[in-house]
Amino acid sequence: MRIARYQATSGGAPAYAVVEGDGDDAVLHALEGLPYDGLRRTGEQLRLAEAQLLAPVEPSKVVAFGRNYAEHAKELGNEVPEIPIVFLKPSTSVVGPDAEVEYPALTSDLHYEGELAVVIGRPCKAVAAGDVAAVVFGYTVANDLTMRDVQKREGQWTRGKGFDGACPLGPWVETDVDPSALALRSTVNGELRQDGTTADMLRDVAECISWVSQAMTLLPGDVVLTGTPAGVGSLQRGDDIAVTIEGIGTLATRIAG
Amino acid sequence: MRIARYQATSGGAPAYAVVEGDGDDAVLHALEGLPYDGLRRTGEQLRLAEAQLLAPVEPSKVVAFGRNYAEHAKELGNEVPEIPIVFLKPSTSVVGPDAEVEYPALTSDLHYEGELAVVIGRPCKAVAAGDVAAVVFGYTVANDLTMRDVQKREGQWTRGKGFDGACPLGPWVETDVDPSALALRSTVNGELRQDGTTADMLRDVAECISWVSQAMTLLPGDVVLTGTPAGVGSLQRGDDIAVTIEGIGTLATRIAG
Repeated sequence: MRIARYQATSGGAPAYAVVEGDGDDAVLHALEGLPYDGLRRTGEQLRLAEAQLLAPVEPSKVVAFGRNYAEHAKELGNEVPEIPIVFLKPSTSVVGPDAEVEYPALTSDLHYEGELAVVIGRPCKAVAAGDVAAVVFGYTVANDLTMRDVQKREGQWTRGKGFDGACPLGPWVETDVDPSALALRSTVNGELRQDGTTADMLRDVAECISWVSQAMTLLPGDVVLTGTPAGVGSLQRGDDIAVTIEGIGTLATRIAG
Repeated sequence: MRIARYQATSGGAPAYAVVEGDGDDAVLHALEGLPYDGLRRTGEQLRLAEAQLLAPVEPSKVVAFGRNYAEHAKELGNEVPEIPIVFLKPSTSVVGPDAEVEYPALTSDLHYEGELAVVIGRPCKAVAAGDVAAVVFGYTVANDLTMRDVQKREGQWTRGKGFDGACPLGPWVETDVDPSALALRSTVNGELRQDGTTADMLRDVAECISWVSQAMTLLPGDVVLTGTPAGVGSLQRGDDIAVTIEGIGTLATRIAG
């Protein structure tokens, strides 16, 4: 099932919804409150074309893995990490599908990184890898936008990966998909740049969630980014990036001109 | 003025309050909603002894500076950083005054770090150092609890400084204090361990806030930790830590036995 968050073009408060149908026939069935404790339809519905999709989650935190695909670690001249590299992106970095993101004044080397994002459904701490499926709500698509020069220069990745707009998420959360071998493709202005599969993750979804949760409680709506495959590169003002993950959807982002 | 957040011992929802008076005479004057847009007293009041103080803020993010005092950088064998070291602590790490924090299973070297914490009062982005005073709501005391072994091993400091309970804050936010030269002392089981002054910060409050805000929007209630002076060290199960900052108050934390 696809769970989106939207605001009607005609106005009103943002709400969660079940998305049914595809393309021009897609319909949003509005939900009461948050979707994590069960889906309660309000009875309201509208066509997808009559709404703006927002980031499909409102995370208290976004935890992310660095260098979780061997070919990507190599392309930036890095070793495959023996110990997972984990960083945080603040909630102020989250934007929705079709967002226009400003090219940050701090950088002259903004990179895209298409990633599978895991959405947590239940509060959890110190989850064994074998128990992770029970705490996952679903999956969405992320673009781990990175000021590569700032990231390299500053050691801790906080500013390099935490600027406003650094975490496009969407278009919705797919609750019924097996994350173990999904094709992941990124294009810039229609040109294919990343063509990977989640099967190549060094640590799989279960290991990632378990690793983070050994230290910190994960809450419903929290997001874990699982790393990017090879093919990252620089963006220019005005570029259109699209990250597509098989079985989930396409997350489009534009860099402001 | 002192702004606390509390829950009455008799029950009820957490609320913000103005604290007036000292010691046994201290009284909480309850506030409507959040304190950042002006203080609206509800008329309710209760004695401080009839309430449990909670963390005085509910931050969307806690941004923190590493090695912002030269003597502390040296004591751990580190250089004074040419570029500020900035990391994030998730909201799940925040606990209030007098909290009991579990000794995390991941570490065998848990450290205290007493710090001045800045509380943001207005949404802001790319603030010049000279304009920072206008976006600061006040100051509180923080303990940047750190799993030193994990921090060193993992490169990014996310798990090492982001575990549940890693960010005690309190006892309240003092809105009327000049942060430029405040005595900061930490004791463990009553023994003096840190005896510094905020005058020794390498980057002062204005520079810290400005630096973070160049990348990311800061929101009311967000917290910026400004680094710890020399004298950090290991904690054992059952230890009592107290961090006192002149003109603000004392933040007490116990490590569970």
